[in-house]
Amino acid sequence: MTRIHFTKGHGTQNDFVLVPDESGELDLTHEQVAYLCHRHAGIGADGVIRVVRTANVPEVAHLAPQATWFMDYRNADGSLAEMCGNGTRVFAEYLRSRGLVSGDEGAPFVIATRAGLKEMVAVPHGWAVDLGQWRLARAEEAERRGMDSVVQVHGSPDPLPALSLDLGNPHTVVALPPSVHLSALDLSDAPHIDPHPEYGSNVEFVRAVEHAHIGMRVHERGSGETRSCGTGAAAAALATWWWGGQPADQVDWRVDVLGGTLGVHIKGTEVALSGPAVLVADGEIDLSQL
Amino acid sequence: MTRIHFTKGHGTQNDFVLVPDESGELDLTHEQVAYLCHRHAGIGADGVIRVVRTANVPEVAHLAPQATWFMDYRNADGSLAEMCGNGTRVFAEYLRSRGLVSGDEGAPFVIATRAGLKEMVAVPHGWAVDLGQWRLARAEEAERRGMDSVVQVHGSPDPLPALSLDLGNPHTVVALPPSVHLSALDLSDAPHIDPHPEYGSNVEFVRAVEHAHIGMRVHERGSGETRSCGTGAAAAALATWWWGGQPADQVDWRVDVLGGTLGVHIKGTEVALSGPAVLVADGEIDLSQL
Repeated sequence: MTRIHFTKGHGTQNDFVLVPDESGELDLTHEQVAYLCHRHAGIGADGVIRVVRTANVPEVAHLAPQATWFMDYRNADGSLAEMCGNGTRVFAEYLRSRGLVSGDEGAPFVIATRAGLKEMVAVPHGWAVDLGQWRLARAEEAERRGMDSVVQVHGSPDPLPALSLDLGNPHTVVALPPSVHLSALDLSDAPHIDPHPEYGSNVEFVRAVEHAHIGMRVHERGSGETRSCGTGAAAAALATWWWGGQPADQVDWRVDVLGGTLGVHIKGTEVALSGPAVLVADGEIDLSQL
Repeated sequence: MTRIHFTKGHGTQNDFVLVPDESGELDLTHEQVAYLCHRHAGIGADGVIRVVRTANVPEVAHLAPQATWFMDYRNADGSLAEMCGNGTRVFAEYLRSRGLVSGDEGAPFVIATRAGLKEMVAVPHGWAVDLGQWRLARAEEAERRGMDSVVQVHGSPDPLPALSLDLGNPHTVVALPPSVHLSALDLSDAPHIDPHPEYGSNVEFVRAVEHAHIGMRVHERGSGETRSCGTGAAAAALATWWWGGQPADQVDWRVDVLGGTLGVHIKGTEVALSGPAVLVADGEIDLSQL
């Protein structure tokens, strides 16, 4: 089979090519994933999501009793990824639109990912995903100094203090000083983090807008600057909330990214992400041209 | 009608969304074109090509006796464009693949564009288009000094001498000195041209590879750096040929761009462009989401 069906969708312009493969027969090569994601020679996306029945994938088949569908997420270079916050939300919208969600319309349901089970809840014009536990990556240092590292941005004279968070993937959040505007940052090169995280880190630059409302730009590890990063938005809200003295145990944050606006719900040591999820186009592509 | 069919295709990664509209009923707004071309919220392309019968478009209906099909080309921002060299080649491949070309398979045929009629000729894995007449834009100055302007690139210390050509659209070609490599150029900002062309200009940076073989990068007026520009490749070959003393009246050039390789055939005051033309995917998109 060389001609496959696809759907293109996005959440705050973090975009995906979804490929239906109910029976789990489609073994996409790195080259095929890269072709699907290539923005000029292929379709173009930040990643590929294979939509497959959990029971038909040996590595996650044990999750099948809780989750009928598995989100097989691949990065644009073809490599596997454990999770993608915006990806789960677009995946949920795909399942809903195709009538693949069992139970009552609009009721929460659970999907399988390589990072385990994730609960999806419908919100107006989109979906929310429970991202689960978060933690300070270097808690002792952070508790002592408020920050635990510094970030140097290309073309900027001074290193900026930063906080490291772990949401399953690593994040380093920088609160910009009043003299530096979000739009003035040059994120064409990867920011330099000191001390350098062993496996690299996503870096979020944050600016307060008003109470529980921030603007953010993000440089993703391995991808460069993107229009949106779901776990990054959660990390940015969490860091700002933490710096502010955690005024409430439960609070809703609004995070403006280049591609739109996300919601982050903090509930103590857990965090959830919400926002729009849009299916744009359906089509067919011939993979034999590779 | 809000759900339309589309095909995505590219020529050396200069990519297009083709929209069939035989009867000429589809009046795409600027916003709809921009949505189709948006690389994160839409499908993603450098431009939109509406495939319409020439007889059904009042502004070009007089060309219908020579050309059955009209390439209605729109830039990614929705504005009209007169011509697009790579676009004509992908347009021809679309017509061929859909059986819309009359006459013998593989025989040359003529299409209508806003810049008039263009003859298309099949070549291995692609198409050639006759771009017609070219000329030096500032011939007196160029004949006297070999160059007629200078170009200043962001981050580069010295202005570089350049030659202005007119291929229906304006081009300014820079031969890089041995000290500057193509890959080292920072084209994230528009190069500054002195004297400044009234309507701006595409700027091509050229490096000789061997006889009649050059490498090129291009900054397109209004678009920024692109992976390929068909008329730009022709201008780059023409300038290099002209600087070399026009050793032959007819000569075939090879031009390497970021997205692949194009052929340029110079025949005195006329020039033709050839290269691959690929149809990638077919699909449907709902324009009512705007």
